[in-house]
Amino acid sequence: MKLFRFGPDGHEQPGVLLANGQHIDVTHFGEDFDESFFASNGLQRLTHWLEAHAPTCPAIPADARFGPCIKRPSKIVCVGLNYAKHAAETGAASPAEPIMFFKATTAICGPNDNLIIPKRSEKTDWEVELAVIIGKRATYVELDDAMDYVAGYAVHNDYSERAWQLERGGQWMKGKSADTYAPIGPYLVTTDDVPNPNSLHLWLNVNGERLQDSNTDDMIFNVPTLVSYISQFMTLLPGDVISTGTPAGVGLGLKPPRYLKPGDVVELGIEGLGEQRQVAVNLNQD
Amino acid sequence: MKLFRFGPDGHEQPGVLLANGQHIDVTHFGEDFDESFFASNGLQRLTHWLEAHAPTCPAIPADARFGPCIKRPSKIVCVGLNYAKHAAETGAASPAEPIMFFKATTAICGPNDNLIIPKRSEKTDWEVELAVIIGKRATYVELDDAMDYVAGYAVHNDYSERAWQLERGGQWMKGKSADTYAPIGPYLVTTDDVPNPNSLHLWLNVNGERLQDSNTDDMIFNVPTLVSYISQFMTLLPGDVISTGTPAGVGLGLKPPRYLKPGDVVELGIEGLGEQRQVAVNLNQD
Repeated sequence: MKLFRFGPDGHEQPGVLLANGQHIDVTHFGEDFDESFFASNGLQRLTHWLEAHAPTCPAIPADARFGPCIKRPSKIVCVGLNYAKHAAETGAASPAEPIMFFKATTAICGPNDNLIIPKRSEKTDWEVELAVIIGKRATYVELDDAMDYVAGYAVHNDYSERAWQLERGGQWMKGKSADTYAPIGPYLVTTDDVPNPNSLHLWLNVNGERLQDSNTDDMIFNVPTLVSYISQFMTLLPGDVISTGTPAGVGLGLKPPRYLKPGDVVELGIEGLGEQRQVAVNLNQD
Repeated sequence: MKLFRFGPDGHEQPGVLLANGQHIDVTHFGEDFDESFFASNGLQRLTHWLEAHAPTCPAIPADARFGPCIKRPSKIVCVGLNYAKHAAETGAASPAEPIMFFKATTAICGPNDNLIIPKRSEKTDWEVELAVIIGKRATYVELDDAMDYVAGYAVHNDYSERAWQLERGGQWMKGKSADTYAPIGPYLVTTDDVPNPNSLHLWLNVNGERLQDSNTDDMIFNVPTLVSYISQFMTLLPGDVISTGTPAGVGLGLKPPRYLKPGDVVELGIEGLGEQRQVAVNLNQD
């Protein structure tokens, strides 16, 4: 199943992409895709509801905006340097265990919303990432059980202000949390439609030029390892997001480094999960 | 005004401490102390409502548990090394600008709940801190306007697993986010009852021994500076928490270092904001 949310920013309604390619409005199901939806077996209930109601659900407007595919979660846990070639391009050693940082949930936006370059930012960079959406409360999860805690997957662009991340005190969150720095979607694709999350092609273009082109099979720590590992340090709630790190090809790693400027177009996608497109703008120009 | 929340974990109800010392149940006001409350001028509306209804509000049960004084916010932004003597005791230089990190909001608990020492933790440490509760959406706030964005203040114990914070990859959040690592309360004290947040005595005892004893006037970056600074990097939402750093006297800074073990009793407080008391327990023993 592919879930999405559509409509104006902050007023999104839930939708489902059917196997026949139709985008339908499931507002009448009566729930948004949030913590309580996932916690109360919402995916199974929605599947059951669709058997009876899908034929009478309206199509979404042809020009509808796609919002983030989930409502604001309690947290976004990001994993750093999880692809060996990306670690190398940043000048870092491959980590012995996952490096984790948080991204502010206020950074979340729709997959095709404008990227707002923050005031005084000079080093806004891109990072295509596989996002894992947690399906149930996870604490001290054993590796063998980890996949039971996953609801599905989505595309995430983990935008990063490199000067703020790396040159302003050492805690990365400072460069990860600006508004629009976390487009998530278009779809939350449930686990039954993703046979192997550890083998998915992912890519990113800037102005049509392919700069990231890799596969999640290059991840140093795979999806179940990350779910189990992170749950040793904190409780993950239903709807929470784990962003699993980015492959080589970010602006920081280019020689010379290259960062986004107004008018740049960023397109990205992951096999089976859909595509995103952002246009970079200055603040108050979107 | 002093707001609190009482009742079982996850089912707290709102309360107000009146000037006469009574703790009253304001459930009939119909709102919890969450983002939408603060965003919709809730403090002013509650004040007005109390003028008519306070006399008929019931007292809370004498044995009521105090919950966190606000409902789960979108984020807790913590400030590191914001007292010069504390920076020195950790071996770090005083920062040239605020160091920021996030704490998982799942770490939040009531002010007198047990501190659960996480599995495999050997270095659980204490940190009394002044928490600032944001009153309205804050982005790119000018220093002169910063205090307009503050709803009030609370006591926060920023519990920290020092090995996980400092020896596991460098991103501090790993050691800051375990369940019960963020007791907040007992009261949210509104700004009108805190004449100067930058001059408050704060202290912490372990098993009756005074280990932290300082004043917020020792902070390197004061409250308005922090609100303005943080809002340059991310949007703060109503109800969000800024924890302003801890003074000297944490376990990491003792010679030899000292960490909490089951049975230890941690008591702390801030002038005018109330006191907390936690008993350390192992997981599944609380």
